[in-house]
Amino acid sequence: MRSSLSLVAAIALAVSSTAFAATPSGTVVPQTRIPDAAFAQVGALRDKSLQDATAWQVLESLTTEIGPRLAGSEADARAVRWAEAKFKALGYDKVWLQPVTFPKWERHGESAAVVGDHAQPLTLTALGGSPAGTVEAEVVRFADLAALEAAPAGSLTGKIAFVDYRMERSRDGSGYGPGSRVRSRGPSAAIRAGAAAFVMRSAGTDSHRNPHTGITRFDDGLTPIPSAALSVPDAEQLSRLIALGKPIRIRIALDCGWDGTATSHNVIGEVTGSHRTLRNEVVVIGGHLDSWDLGTGAVDDGAGVAITMAAGHHIAKLPKAQRPARTIRVIAFANEEQGLYGGKVYAESQKAAIAAHQLVAESDFGAGRIYGFNTSAAPHAQAAAARIAEALKPLGIEALAKGGPGPDVGPIAALGAAWAWLGQDGTDYFDLHHTPDDTLDKVDPAALAQNTAAYTVFAFLAASADGGFGSAPKAEAAKP
Amino acid sequence: MRSSLSLVAAIALAVSSTAFAATPSGTVVPQTRIPDAAFAQVGALRDKSLQDATAWQVLESLTTEIGPRLAGSEADARAVRWAEAKFKALGYDKVWLQPVTFPKWERHGESAAVVGDHAQPLTLTALGGSPAGTVEAEVVRFADLAALEAAPAGSLTGKIAFVDYRMERSRDGSGYGPGSRVRSRGPSAAIRAGAAAFVMRSAGTDSHRNPHTGITRFDDGLTPIPSAALSVPDAEQLSRLIALGKPIRIRIALDCGWDGTATSHNVIGEVTGSHRTLRNEVVVIGGHLDSWDLGTGAVDDGAGVAITMAAGHHIAKLPKAQRPARTIRVIAFANEEQGLYGGKVYAESQKAAIAAHQLVAESDFGAGRIYGFNTSAAPHAQAAAARIAEALKPLGIEALAKGGPGPDVGPIAALGAAWAWLGQDGTDYFDLHHTPDDTLDKVDPAALAQNTAAYTVFAFLAASADGGFGSAPKAEAAKP
Repeated sequence: MRSSLSLVAAIALAVSSTAFAATPSGTVVPQTRIPDAAFAQVGALRDKSLQDATAWQVLESLTTEIGPRLAGSEADARAVRWAEAKFKALGYDKVWLQPVTFPKWERHGESAAVVGDHAQPLTLTALGGSPAGTVEAEVVRFADLAALEAAPAGSLTGKIAFVDYRMERSRDGSGYGPGSRVRSRGPSAAIRAGAAAFVMRSAGTDSHRNPHTGITRFDDGLTPIPSAALSVPDAEQLSRLIALGKPIRIRIALDCGWDGTATSHNVIGEVTGSHRTLRNEVVVIGGHLDSWDLGTGAVDDGAGVAITMAAGHHIAKLPKAQRPARTIRVIAFANEEQGLYGGKVYAESQKAAIAAHQLVAESDFGAGRIYGFNTSAAPHAQAAAARIAEALKPLGIEALAKGGPGPDVGPIAALGAAWAWLGQDGTDYFDLHHTPDDTLDKVDPAALAQNTAAYTVFAFLAASADGGFGSAPKAEAAKP
Repeated sequence: MRSSLSLVAAIALAVSSTAFAATPSGTVVPQTRIPDAAFAQVGALRDKSLQDATAWQVLESLTTEIGPRLAGSEADARAVRWAEAKFKALGYDKVWLQPVTFPKWERHGESAAVVGDHAQPLTLTALGGSPAGTVEAEVVRFADLAALEAAPAGSLTGKIAFVDYRMERSRDGSGYGPGSRVRSRGPSAAIRAGAAAFVMRSAGTDSHRNPHTGITRFDDGLTPIPSAALSVPDAEQLSRLIALGKPIRIRIALDCGWDGTATSHNVIGEVTGSHRTLRNEVVVIGGHLDSWDLGTGAVDDGAGVAITMAAGHHIAKLPKAQRPARTIRVIAFANEEQGLYGGKVYAESQKAAIAAHQLVAESDFGAGRIYGFNTSAAPHAQAAAARIAEALKPLGIEALAKGGPGPDVGPIAALGAAWAWLGQDGTDYFDLHHTPDDTLDKVDPAALAQNTAAYTVFAFLAASADGGFGSAPKAEAAKP
């Protein structure tokens, strides 16, 4: 969901802003405005957030005391209790849990090796959703997903398919689309060609012996095969071995798989708004509480949880009279990694309250500095969005006509909630994402504080606005 | 063994060089000189080496086709056959194997985890020489080796000792002394205090989930305990957990240990000298063929093998008339990692030929650019050494009063062979050293070529000299 009027254009418009704007249907709605009193508070709030260590302390606590927290695991349940207690300790007015049930996937062990004349171990990790299995077979290399998808049915019978696609590095993470498509579609393509197993070069931009996991899926009607990602150096090693020109056999052994269902929880903390009626409306910010099991989920997505928990905390600490009109709702979403389960449950639960969602935004792209801001604001709220952008500018953030809702607020945005994008610099994100290397030491405390300041300013101003940003339930029929 | 006259001072002296110099015993020996004809060849040899990809191809071949090659393993034996064939393919005149026998240590598996309220896996690796064992116990942290060594006998009974010493980064690797001392002495200190197991922060400068292995030893009379190194992020995690103030228990399970003896080989290639009698003298260069098992031994020490094999090859390719007087002997040493076994066997075998070793030098500090040069040259050869330094200058190398023989030529240097030091930039070396991350992608082909050019020039000039550099058997009694 993207507004047809870009924020950049809106900033120009804001200079000569009219008091009213026409909706697409022709009715005239008042321009949303952010009160001057709110702007007067923002400088101090921003500066205080920049100096404050709360986000770092929250992130350190989560990644240290809980560590990895695969959805449905014992540690995931521990993380839910942790989040509940942390919201309370941070002065949130209301803390509640929303149950989220999903299929449970577990990893017990994995190994791989080249066998034969060049025998040597290979470092890989099972993709989330892979079945268990041990396969020893010749490897057939494909340069990319399209090449594998072009393999005729039966052409890989008794073989292991290997897609050696190299993901590109970029600030906005745009290289992850083609990179993660290999992960999500590769296994099914391999099965169609008859393969006994699937391996891929990790969807990542680093060059360490740390493979990148992530969820995969198998198309209906196909029998799943063991599917795994090699670390980048291992993928390059395998390619060099294949380039020797002799058949190369590898053995992969994955001990993992689905085991019933589990129930975890969205953990929700609220800082109640100051206005008697508007406090029933919410600005939603958050991150996801679950992580992959290989690292400690620092950049994915402990950072998002920490940034938004701390932002709410900074607003909670304000004198009651200075609180924004609306409620700040911070959500630590359950099981994002395996299919946005928490985000979908939340959206479903809010179907009757779409219009009460002022704006929704998720931090789920690491802990790099925020460089861009955008919203899906309706025309009547573009000038207000532009003023938020103005308040973010001292943090090095510019209005950009790009972005979208984060993954867990995607489902509610699809139902009609207006979204904001606080775009983080993800240049290094895919060095760490879904790997054992996603640990606390990779986070820059100053960048984390910049993120927290941005979310604090954004949430405060959005919750203080006179008027909304265009959230409205979409007719079911209007869905694509 | 270090000359009392530094090379830097010698360069000044060389300007007014006399034809004769006095030895410490007062006898007068002729000044060693490098013929102008040799210098005339050096520019072309240097430039050709810089443009040549042989070292890279050798390194790629070794790390890809053999991979990790733990001393005594099947892959180590494969590496010996590989080296023998590679010397022949590179045009060496003579290739021979020298058996080296040593105790065989094997790694089968290892794992660790925090247990209890903060349950989570930890990434570690057994230290070479560690016995097998599973220990679950409370961890006691020590900031450094001295703190552990000060622990009273019995004070760690039933505990796991943890030394959290942070190794410093430096160009010359000087941080490795204190870092590796934790590894070599820590386990014995832990045993004396009663500990059931020993863990340490890896002796490394990186921040990845790749622990650094390396040999340890246990003092006579002590019963060895399981001993391992945590990756740097895991050591920091464990320290943070301990800082919570509650007892922290971990479980470590190591499946590894000694298993009889193995015989591997020093693999030796020679490029025969052009002089009828001086060809019986040798310039020895080399690296070690074995590696730790976690990576593919690219920087430690595939690079050293590749650089020196390629240097000898460049000299072998010269027209016979342009060959240096003496023989270039390139040695791929066996089992450096577990105690310089290959270097010791070689030195023992050459006891009667110390004076025939013109100069000895080993490349075993990665693949960073060479920045410094030094030798142990006797006073009568300092001017010649200074002229070699001059020939290396266009490669960005300066004469420095530091360095020493490489590890495997240390034993023969101790017997009296004159050594040279071609000092590599090791700033990043301990990011990779002894880890899974020691792989081909970490090597810069241009830096590798610079190393090769330096070894080619050095070996060529040293082998062309009129006169020696001071090698002479040391009287046994003169040993310290």
